Amino acid sequence: MGVDDEQVHGVGTDVEDPEAHGSSVLATDASDDAFPAYWCEWDDCPTLVGDGVERSPVARIPASERRNALVEAALRVVSRQGIARATTRAIVAEAGMSLASFHYAFDSRDELIDELIATVVAREEQAVIPDIVPGQDLRRILESGLLRYLEHLEADPDHEQAMLELTQYALRSPERYPLAVAQYRRYAELAEHSLEIAAEAAGTTWRRPVAEVAHVLVAFTDGLTITWLVDRDDAAARAVVRTAADALSRMADTR
Amino acid sequence: MGVDDEQVHGVGTDVEDPEAHGSSVLATDASDDAFPAYWCEWDDCPTLVGDGVERSPVARIPASERRNALVEAALRVVSRQGIARATTRAIVAEAGMSLASFHYAFDSRDELIDELIATVVAREEQAVIPDIVPGQDLRRILESGLLRYLEHLEADPDHEQAMLELTQYALRSPERYPLAVAQYRRYAELAEHSLEIAAEAAGTTWRRPVAEVAHVLVAFTDGLTITWLVDRDDAAARAVVRTAADALSRMADTR
Repeated sequence: MGVDDEQVHGVGTDVEDPEAHGSSVLATDASDDAFPAYWCEWDDCPTLVGDGVERSPVARIPASERRNALVEAALRVVSRQGIARATTRAIVAEAGMSLASFHYAFDSRDELIDELIATVVAREEQAVIPDIVPGQDLRRILESGLLRYLEHLEADPDHEQAMLELTQYALRSPERYPLAVAQYRRYAELAEHSLEIAAEAAGTTWRRPVAEVAHVLVAFTDGLTITWLVDRDDAAARAVVRTAADALSRMADTR
Repeated sequence: MGVDDEQVHGVGTDVEDPEAHGSSVLATDASDDAFPAYWCEWDDCPTLVGDGVERSPVARIPASERRNALVEAALRVVSRQGIARATTRAIVAEAGMSLASFHYAFDSRDELIDELIATVVAREEQAVIPDIVPGQDLRRILESGLLRYLEHLEADPDHEQAMLELTQYALRSPERYPLAVAQYRRYAELAEHSLEIAAEAAGTTWRRPVAEVAHVLVAFTDGLTITWLVDRDDAAARAVVRTAADALSRMADTR
C-alpha cells in the first residue's frame, strides 16, 4: 500500500496542503510557502557570498532547465518501470535532485505529468505532421502521416506505452481524470492540425467538422498503437494504416 | 513495494515452486502437491462422517463453481480498484475464500486472469454478434454490431477499462506478456467469427484474409473504447462506429 499512498499524495492534491505531505515523504521535503531559500541540497548547496547574504541556490539552475530535467527523468522512469512506480521520489532520484528541487520547479506531480504529456505529444507532432509531396491525394497524404506515426511507435514503443498507461492511470480516480482529458485534448489538437494541413495540400475540404474527423483519427491511432504493442505485427499494423487512411479520406470532398 | 512483490509472485510463476510462495503469502497457503484434503477453511470446514473418514471439504463445492466465483470476484476487484490492487489475497477476500481454496481451483494467478479474460470476451461475444436483419448490406450489419459493442461499453465501462488495464499490465513484463497475447487472440477470434457471420448474411466475401480484416476491427474497437472511456462523448463514438463500419465494408466484394 505504501507505493499507492505515495501516488495519491503526489497526484490530485495540492502540495501546499500539509495533509498532502505529512509523514509519507522524506524529511527534506517542504511545502512551497515554507520553502527556505537557503535550503541545502547535495546537488546544489548555497554559498555565503561577500555580503553575508545567502543566495537562493536553486536559482542558479534556470527553472525551465530544472523542469525539463525532471520531465525527462519522469519519462525514463515511466517508460522503464510503469506509471505506478513513477513516484515523485523515484523521479527526483532519477534526475539526481532533491524533493525540494522538485517542489521548486513544479507545484505538484500532476503538473509534471501534464508537462510530460505535452512533451511526448510535441514529439509525436514532429513525427506525424505530413510531409507534403506535391500531387498526392488525401488518402496518400493521410497514409504517409499514419505510417510516420507507426515508424515513430516502432522506434520508441516505451514512450507510447507510457502514454497509454498514463491514460488508464488517470481514468482510475476522479482527481486524476483531468490528466486523461488534457492528454486527449492535446491529441485532438495535433490530429486537427495534421488533418487541416493534409486537406489543404490535397485541395479538399472536410465534409464533417474537423473536430469530428480528428476524433476518429485519434481513435484509430490509439487502436493501431495498442494492437501493435501487443502483437508487434508490422504488416498487420500497415493494414490498419491503409484502412484508416482510406476511411478518413472518404470524410472529405474534393473542392 | 509489498503490493508489487505479491503481484510478481502471483503472475508468471508456478505455484508449485516453493520460491514463488515462500514467505510472502499467508501461513494458510499450501502448494498443490502438499494440499491436505482435510484442510480446514472457515467457509468450508471438513466434517467427520459415520465411517470416521474425513471427506475432502473442497470437493463439496464443484471446482467449476469455485473457479466461477473466483473469476467473478477478480472481475469485481479489478473493475473497482484496478489490476495493480487485484492481488490473489484481495481476490480471495472478495470471494470469501481462503488462499488454499484459490490454489485448489487455479494453478496460478495467471490462470485465473486468463479465465477472467475469457469470461469478459464471452460476454462481449454475446453483445456484439450481429443480429441479422434480412436485406441489410454489409456496412449496416457491421455498424449495428459495433453499435451493440458501444452500448455494451456504455452499460458496463468498468469491465472494458479493466481489460485495457490488464493489457498494459501484461505488457509490463516478459512473464505476463503471454496474457496480453492470449487476450488479443481471443479478441481476434471473436472478430473473425463476427466478420464471417456478417459477410455471409450480406452475401459478400472478404477481399483480404479474414484474419487481416479482424485485426483492423480489433484495432478500431480498441480505439473506440479508449477514446470513449476518456471523453464519454457518445456522439463522437458513433462517428467512429460509422467510419469504421464503412471502412471495413470496403474490404469485401459483393459475391
